[in-house]
Amino acid sequence: MMLEVCASPKPGNVDRCHDYPDTRLEHFLASTLMVRPVLERAERRAAGIGTLIREAVQATSSHRGGNTHFGAFILLMPLVCGGDIPGAAREIGTTTVQDAIEFYRAFGMTEVRVCAEDELDVHDPAATEQIHARGMTLYDLMVYSAEKDMVAREWVNGFTLTRRTADLLLASDDARSAIPAAFLNLLATEQDSFIVKKFGRAKAEQTRLMAAEVLRGQKSVESLDAWCIQEKVNPGSLADITIAAIYTALGEGWQWG
Amino acid sequence: MMLEVCASPKPGNVDRCHDYPDTRLEHFLASTLMVRPVLERAERRAAGIGTLIREAVQATSSHRGGNTHFGAFILLMPLVCGGDIPGAAREIGTTTVQDAIEFYRAFGMTEVRVCAEDELDVHDPAATEQIHARGMTLYDLMVYSAEKDMVAREWVNGFTLTRRTADLLLASDDARSAIPAAFLNLLATEQDSFIVKKFGRAKAEQTRLMAAEVLRGQKSVESLDAWCIQEKVNPGSLADITIAAIYTALGEGWQWG
Repeated sequence: MMLEVCASPKPGNVDRCHDYPDTRLEHFLASTLMVRPVLERAERRAAGIGTLIREAVQATSSHRGGNTHFGAFILLMPLVCGGDIPGAAREIGTTTVQDAIEFYRAFGMTEVRVCAEDELDVHDPAATEQIHARGMTLYDLMVYSAEKDMVAREWVNGFTLTRRTADLLLASDDARSAIPAAFLNLLATEQDSFIVKKFGRAKAEQTRLMAAEVLRGQKSVESLDAWCIQEKVNPGSLADITIAAIYTALGEGWQWG
Repeated sequence: MMLEVCASPKPGNVDRCHDYPDTRLEHFLASTLMVRPVLERAERRAAGIGTLIREAVQATSSHRGGNTHFGAFILLMPLVCGGDIPGAAREIGTTTVQDAIEFYRAFGMTEVRVCAEDELDVHDPAATEQIHARGMTLYDLMVYSAEKDMVAREWVNGFTLTRRTADLLLASDDARSAIPAAFLNLLATEQDSFIVKKFGRAKAEQTRLMAAEVLRGQKSVESLDAWCIQEKVNPGSLADITIAAIYTALGEGWQWG
């Protein structure tokens, strides 16, 4: 989480050279510091994944920068519990209805964007009853969310983008530039579902195409960054996947430098 | 520690906008993350101050950025054990010969600059025997070092600069600029003893006078920063005192934002 937020340049997102008015580099780093006891509990598998995600949101809610790492926790908790991607896939398969309920409690504590047409609105007290009535596990919830949310999709598809991005980090011969390069690769190949929810698919695709131009050397990363900031386009879900990829790569021997 | 290293601009030191070739922002932040269990032990007063300093150096030595926070740990451990400056003064009064031995073990693990003419050279195995023979406590060691080292001087003079800098933070009405402003105030009023050891007193005084010009608006902070970087003048001891001041101010209700 620390390496991801410090990496620069990352078009649109908070980094060393760019804050948002209400969410600054220091807020992301405070969250990184505050979550440690919960990550240690995850390493010991001291609680279920839903509970760990809820504890992580609680542990990091005392800074005033708003939601910083909710999506990252959704990816990190199974990875840390399982130790790696195959382990995470095993953990995910054992999630329960209680994990789903705990996840909804965590969701309710954040200000994460929810689709208006979303059937299981987190702010609706009936949602919990529906989860119980349907017997939905946290994995089922992620299947339900996967179409619209690329973080949930990682749970369902075996952490495909996490794996691909970790491989990019592992293949890089310059650790310092590896994270911004891996992030740019994601930005140029995937529509960020956070941007889709915030602005619609057209804007997400426009962002992707501009990132592809940067990747081909037809546009400067600085101009893309400036455009993202002006348009308030912050690819937050791709940052979450980058964090999961850094965790995975470090676990496989990647060294930052 | 996190707020101090992120604060910018800080002439000469690592910050958001400036790394050293071998020591980067991320190394300071890794140290900040790694030391947490030792700071928690200090809060519980689970070990003596010498042992805590040695544990902190060990806990933070696995990154490859060299020594990042040795001086900060010397100030933080009594502060965290005691809870505040009066508590730290009480803790310091109870240090033992064993604390001094542990401190020397920690010192030996770092690459901290030692004066050539220093009688108790840390790299000399006889130093430990001398400490035993003289019955020197860690406090006695700091008295011994106070003339040449402003971090040791804080132990001896009741954390004078820490107190003054914490008061500046508490009096500031803009949290974001408070840390760089407090650091500049230190830089303009005190010779950094780390710079004295590295380059001699003339260079340290030259740095101080230039910072005083910045404080009076006669010079830009950017030009001082550029000069420090070119001359490799990194006021590390003033950064340590700034960290102790941030800890003190936060404990007295200061909020970063």
